[in-house]
Amino acid sequence: MFALNSNRELAEEMAHLLGCELGKSSSTQFSDGELQIHIEESVRGSEVFLVQSASEPTNEYIMELLIMIDALKRASAKMINVVMPYFSYARQDRKARSREPITARLIANLLETAGATRILTIDFHSPQAQGFFDIPVDHLTGIPILADYFKKKSLDDLVIVAPHNGGVVRARKIANILNVPLALIDRRRPEHDETEIMHIIGNIEGKNAIIVDDLIDTAGTITTGANALIENGAKAVYACCTHAVLSGPAIDRIKSSSIEELVITNTIRVPQEKRIDKINVLSVAPLLVEAIDRIHNQKAVSPLFE
Amino acid sequence: MFALNSNRELAEEMAHLLGCELGKSSSTQFSDGELQIHIEESVRGSEVFLVQSASEPTNEYIMELLIMIDALKRASAKMINVVMPYFSYARQDRKARSREPITARLIANLLETAGATRILTIDFHSPQAQGFFDIPVDHLTGIPILADYFKKKSLDDLVIVAPHNGGVVRARKIANILNVPLALIDRRRPEHDETEIMHIIGNIEGKNAIIVDDLIDTAGTITTGANALIENGAKAVYACCTHAVLSGPAIDRIKSSSIEELVITNTIRVPQEKRIDKINVLSVAPLLVEAIDRIHNQKAVSPLFE
Amino acid sequence: MFALNSNRELAEEMAHLLGCELGKSSSTQFSDGELQIHIEESVRGSEVFLVQSASEPTNEYIMELLIMIDALKRASAKMINVVMPYFSYARQDRKARSREPITARLIANLLETAGATRILTIDFHSPQAQGFFDIPVDHLTGIPILADYFKKKSLDDLVIVAPHNGGVVRARKIANILNVPLALIDRRRPEHDETEIMHIIGNIEGKNAIIVDDLIDTAGTITTGANALIENGAKAVYACCTHAVLSGPAIDRIKSSSIEELVITNTIRVPQEKRIDKINVLSVAPLLVEAIDRIHNQKAVSPLFE
Amino acid sequence: MFALNSNRELAEEMAHLLGCELGKSSSTQFSDGELQIHIEESVRGSEVFLVQSASEPTNEYIMELLIMIDALKRASAKMINVVMPYFSYARQDRKARSREPITARLIANLLETAGATRILTIDFHSPQAQGFFDIPVDHLTGIPILADYFKKKSLDDLVIVAPHNGGVVRARKIANILNVPLALIDRRRPEHDETEIMHIIGNIEGKNAIIVDDLIDTAGTITTGANALIENGAKAVYACCTHAVLSGPAIDRIKSSSIEELVITNTIRVPQEKRIDKINVLSVAPLLVEAIDRIHNQKAVSPLFE
Amino acid sequence: MFALNSNRELAEEMAHLLGCELGKSSSTQFSDGELQIHIEESVRGSEVFLVQSASEPTNEYIMELLIMIDALKRASAKMINVVMPYFSYARQDRKARSREPITARLIANLLETAGATRILTIDFHSPQAQGFFDIPVDHLTGIPILADYFKKKSLDDLVIVAPHNGGVVRARKIANILNVPLALIDRRRPEHDETEIMHIIGNIEGKNAIIVDDLIDTAGTITTGANALIENGAKAVYACCTHAVLSGPAIDRIKSSSIEELVITNTIRVPQEKRIDKINVLSVAPLLVEAIDRIHNQKAVSPLFE
Amino acid sequence: MFALNSNRELAEEMAHLLGCELGKSSSTQFSDGELQIHIEESVRGSEVFLVQSASEPTNEYIMELLIMIDALKRASAKMINVVMPYFSYARQDRKARSREPITARLIANLLETAGATRILTIDFHSPQAQGFFDIPVDHLTGIPILADYFKKKSLDDLVIVAPHNGGVVRARKIANILNVPLALIDRRRPEHDETEIMHIIGNIEGKNAIIVDDLIDTAGTITTGANALIENGAKAVYACCTHAVLSGPAIDRIKSSSIEELVITNTIRVPQEKRIDKINVLSVAPLLVEAIDRIHNQKAVSPLFE
Repeated sequence: MFALNSNRELAEEMAHLLGCELGKSSSTQFSDGELQIHIEESVRGSEVFLVQSASEPTNEYIMELLIMIDALKRASAKMINVVMPYFSYARQDRKARSREPITARLIANLLETAGATRILTIDFHSPQAQGFFDIPVDHLTGIPILADYFKKKSLDDLVIVAPHNGGVVRARKIANILNVPLALIDRRRPEHDETEIMHIIGNIEGKNAIIVDDLIDTAGTITTGANALIENGAKAVYACCTHAVLSGPAIDRIKSSSIEELVITNTIRVPQEKRIDKINVLSVAPLLVEAIDRIHNQKAVSPLFE
Repeated sequence: MFALNSNRELAEEMAHLLGCELGKSSSTQFSDGELQIHIEESVRGSEVFLVQSASEPTNEYIMELLIMIDALKRASAKMINVVMPYFSYARQDRKARSREPITARLIANLLETAGATRILTIDFHSPQAQGFFDIPVDHLTGIPILADYFKKKSLDDLVIVAPHNGGVVRARKIANILNVPLALIDRRRPEHDETEIMHIIGNIEGKNAIIVDDLIDTAGTITTGANALIENGAKAVYACCTHAVLSGPAIDRIKSSSIEELVITNTIRVPQEKRIDKINVLSVAPLLVEAIDRIHNQKAVSPLFE
Repeated sequence: MFALNSNRELAEEMAHLLGCELGKSSSTQFSDGELQIHIEESVRGSEVFLVQSASEPTNEYIMELLIMIDALKRASAKMINVVMPYFSYARQDRKARSREPITARLIANLLETAGATRILTIDFHSPQAQGFFDIPVDHLTGIPILADYFKKKSLDDLVIVAPHNGGVVRARKIANILNVPLALIDRRRPEHDETEIMHIIGNIEGKNAIIVDDLIDTAGTITTGANALIENGAKAVYACCTHAVLSGPAIDRIKSSSIEELVITNTIRVPQEKRIDKINVLSVAPLLVEAIDRIHNQKAVSPLFE
Repeated sequence: MFALNSNRELAEEMAHLLGCELGKSSSTQFSDGELQIHIEESVRGSEVFLVQSASEPTNEYIMELLIMIDALKRASAKMINVVMPYFSYARQDRKARSREPITARLIANLLETAGATRILTIDFHSPQAQGFFDIPVDHLTGIPILADYFKKKSLDDLVIVAPHNGGVVRARKIANILNVPLALIDRRRPEHDETEIMHIIGNIEGKNAIIVDDLIDTAGTITTGANALIENGAKAVYACCTHAVLSGPAIDRIKSSSIEELVITNTIRVPQEKRIDKINVLSVAPLLVEAIDRIHNQKAVSPLFE
Repeated sequence: MFALNSNRELAEEMAHLLGCELGKSSSTQFSDGELQIHIEESVRGSEVFLVQSASEPTNEYIMELLIMIDALKRASAKMINVVMPYFSYARQDRKARSREPITARLIANLLETAGATRILTIDFHSPQAQGFFDIPVDHLTGIPILADYFKKKSLDDLVIVAPHNGGVVRARKIANILNVPLALIDRRRPEHDETEIMHIIGNIEGKNAIIVDDLIDTAGTITTGANALIENGAKAVYACCTHAVLSGPAIDRIKSSSIEELVITNTIRVPQEKRIDKINVLSVAPLLVEAIDRIHNQKAVSPLFE
Repeated sequence: MFALNSNRELAEEMAHLLGCELGKSSSTQFSDGELQIHIEESVRGSEVFLVQSASEPTNEYIMELLIMIDALKRASAKMINVVMPYFSYARQDRKARSREPITARLIANLLETAGATRILTIDFHSPQAQGFFDIPVDHLTGIPILADYFKKKSLDDLVIVAPHNGGVVRARKIANILNVPLALIDRRRPEHDETEIMHIIGNIEGKNAIIVDDLIDTAGTITTGANALIENGAKAVYACCTHAVLSGPAIDRIKSSSIEELVITNTIRVPQEKRIDKINVLSVAPLLVEAIDRIHNQKAVSPLFE
């Protein structure tokens, strides 16, 4: 198992759980920005697991990943299993307007071109992204980890809230596990108007609401949603997501929002300055380690999907 | 422009609008089920538009399409633009369980392998399916056609209803055009139980509801949904979709349901026995013809996407 | 070893000989004609043998095969060995006229695109079809099985007859094994005339003739040939082939023909209604099982080719 | 139009008929056997026709062809149409024994890898070789040229003879044009015996026999066949083929055989020492030029196939 | 012609010379580092020239380039000509040690995978990098531009100096144009020692020396070389290169070195703070524009290579 | 391990060192120049090492190699490791002029297309040729073998001489090992003049000079260089290279030159008539055998690179 620079903490936690050491490799950046990668131990004939979570700076980490795959391929690795707990550019998975790229498919193609032979990832933005690959994809989900946390917390009078129209299916999944009802924050943007209009559909009055999303980036959607829920009578608002991008104004917005508690996972490295009181970080390392163990021993990974 | 057997009516309407004749080709089925295709005029150096809507019998029509593409490629056609108003297997676009295929991606690969150089289609089940292709995809939408129809109908007190949790984004689009509110039929299936539980989220009481979906197959979802809406106080229920698969018990269910009127398009051929009173068929031929004209003359197709 | 729907009897016979059970998988057809395939046990890292004989309904079975291969590939099977005792569309292996497809090559490409890593088949229509594949092909022959049958039957004064001009090489092979002479039914179709003219070349008078072909489809060639042989003085006419397509009028034609006995194999499933008295079915299961055993244990398959 | 070294005479005849000059390029062989190719005029954006007939020394000519295609591709030629009047290694089109290559398919792959975009050829050994290519193949036939010659010669009491079991279909084609009967030289090699046994099937007594083959290499088959025909009572024996490889003992064998006259074409360059009295060379240049003209002007090539 | 963010100045100069405007497109970076690209005018059927010089931040610019190519491909551009005046990672063109990547080849593969159809570049680090591409590469050289500058300067008693052992062939080219002798700074690093030892081979005493390199990165090689030349008796030292990476300590080193004047080109954008007195910037825009004009009009680009 | 015809001596020496026998295969050339290859023992599932050094007749040996790879692939070999001690056409690794091929890259593509899965070679003409392959390349070097020889010879007052401007880096490597200084024979060809002018840069007076090159073909460069060294005061001249092509006038030139001794390796077969007194042949068999052993046992090959 090798790790690149994006989330070395997670990789080390995984190595610890597996009882192995991370492979020795170096990735140096020259002063002109070029990366030089060197694998420092033989991988000839090995089944390699390469951990990289392409969060910010995304493009640097993607290039680092592609170059490392090339190095592994040329060093005669037998299998190159790319472990991307967070698959970046996942939101660019269709042409929303004319003449846009489909960057998520492009990244899939680039990974296959470089030489990846399998992808292990968690909670794609759309499950259809599995179909962007010709190589096998083991697509895990962090939803049970989040659901378990709230199960143990035993809040009463719960409602799960999808923070935007595209999030209902995901919200339904966690609602199923917790066996509680669903609501939706319907958003629309009238023509020739910059202001988004929110409308809450479903009953949230007097309830403990949990907003669920796959990722939180600048935290605009989740914090405006939380505030709207409170204004419309929710008792308290919790939030959770798998991928905590938390870029730009995210931390400030969360601090000043009505959100009681935000539960995230460590698919993306959570630096110390983002670990504020309101935020609770759960680890996906046991999930990934279980999957790697099953892949390596050619046992079914399916029990982890359910 | 050539047409295969799945929806010759639509192709002929398109040819008529374009003021051209359909290319001469034959597709014969032998008694053992094998197809023999012969193109009866030269296509050397031509830009071909090949119309096939892979509805029932789906597998026959997909194979017919692939074989025809092979014949066109070997006959030195310059460009093979595949016009699939309905792209079948579009619902199999991800692994819902372990060890399932992603048939929509497979079909995309098969089309590219056979030699297709462009796809022109309408309303994929998921817009992400665009990313299953490496060749350009011109992805049109039938939603404005459906919305226009209801605009002209001028029903008052409208609400757009998503018939299941995955249909909210689509419903939001038509609600935006008609400038009316949204509701959702939330469905879940408790563990160890076969019965699906429906729950209406949003206000539909006393309103004219329009259920929107991309496709209607056996019509179970849409008819149970319509009945639930009426039971919960809707004034009347209308329904619309782009792709009218209408297989198995669909027509009977629609007949006996609370649906006032079902508006569909002819992306899939609608045989006479399915053209019952409640069903109103709008044509996508003008939309497709406009797109073909723009592609052929290398003008932007984007105005058609908006 | 997994089996699809085309010839489950043969697959079960093979599994019985191998002393194993068929892998658990389901292939369901929805009312709109789409197939849903699900593999019900783990195949991760396995060497899979997948049995499908793409006879009628050919296109359905080819699509089922392609989708199953996609499912196996995405489920991380290590090797996907496709066992196609009968390779359909094998007669469309060249452009006989301008602007025809070469469907046999197309099918080869589709299988490779889907993810097949080896083909195991019996008696291609032309041996050149091996060259349509980039993956290894193990090409077995059913001719020794047919020859052995006639050897045991000990008919005297035999002649092997090629039923059309393209069948002489195949006829020569069985004639070599039985050490008997050869004759040929030369067929031609004069210009502007629909009637085919047959002319028997070689000595068949007073002899027991065995007509040999690779496949019998509508049985026109073989029955007109048999009758011509009798008219020209043959004592009795037998016929044999590897692939018994037997479509359309085949059974009726055989019944009313001068053919004494038709010996076939079970590469294609022979349903009860085709098992008439005149027809004798030999099994290729032992041949296929021996090949699979050798492939699995990495022993030479060549002894089976000779 | 560019020509390489294998058959410059034919290319010059073609250029003359087209009223153009051959493109300027040089192909030099260094003393260590490496070839250096240089194209001496711009081909940027051009549709190039490159003539090379890969006869002896076959491997040199194939490599020369591949290198020239690479040079054309890198020099930004728009289309690279490879004109191979004779496609060498065409007889290695299947595995006749275990662990043999399928060299004809390999050559097809190599041509596509190098960058060829179309093949124009004459009389493949098996028509199935068309299916070895994914790019379009225009497959012409020299049979009408040969047939026309014999039509004009007006020999009476003709019979067309296939010189071996695999040549009956080809012989049938020329027999159809000349409207004369067919015979076959059936050859077999008993086990544990080196001597081939010939047996003439069909009536040739007192007739003028024309032996037809696609290519004549060492001329063993055709000369032993001719002698056998004479011994069995044929009046006179003529022979014809498209591809005159004429290697090794061929010329001596023809000289001393019973063959009256051998009619060949110039798909392979016929050097002066092989132009003996018995041999008559017909030109395929007009056929190729007509095809090139039609390809270049995007007209159907099909009239030339019939 | 479209330009991305790396060297918009050069692209604008080129557009000005061509008398056209740059295509409208936007490339926005989100706060999480992901890029969003949108092409704002139709490119359907167009031959696009896309200018990007992948200098620092290299990885950002490469990803921006790949995503833009994807967008152009999906927007149906006919040809995507990538103009990379500076091709980054060009020094990683071989495995210098075990288990290193060959990043230059990887980048070539990524560009082809994304959809580039041609590369136009200047002075690869090694000319062999042309062979990393399967698509045509138009490889221009900036050496005549640099040589012309020194020709006009008319320094007497010149010697061209290769600053390291790998630079002799390049130095020879400029020495040929200026018709002056050559010297070499031979560098070696004794085992177990960090200090590099320089040794000047050739006569430089009392001469005006011009050091030539393809690129100057941190300027260590060129400044230590210049100082050594002065110490060994050179009258004055000039330097020149095509690609002015000038990263890290480069500007400081050049300022404090014995270099009289450094002549560079603008293949990489030279920001104001690097335009110190000693540095003289020549433009490659006329060279690139001439090449683009010839490519667009399908005229030979070769005159520009000589 | 299998060997083809180019350097069977080396292969036999390798087999002897490995303590195994060469695999049984035949490669026959027909009188028309076509090769027929047959592998005479099972390779199903095996890891094959195939030795072929594509020296003169180069094109024959390359085609033989490609055909053998095809045969191995179709015979189900698991890994096809191509051992090319000498990789021909390595000098055609860039476009030196417009409209030239890059034959070295073409050969790399052809090998991958045929089915090679790894290349093991010695001293590419440019190390960049590693990047022409997508499959792993194990690139060994013969320089330590040559250096060791001269170390043992203990000549005093040594200088290493690069025989042309492109050979300085290679010369530096051997100079490093022997810890001696470097000189360079600078060559240029004035415009409009056929005569090459040589100029020696560096101090060689009274010294024992060793000229180093990767390959010696017609020996022009090395012999004119040797003579120039003597004329300029060298005490004696030795020469060495890895690849001894020695074509055309090479042996005569060496005999009559001032070269005292030429040390070569047997990457290319050295026939008896070239083994003149002045030439000393060292074997690369131990190096190759060590590499094969490490590859086969999945140990790092890197120790051999240093």
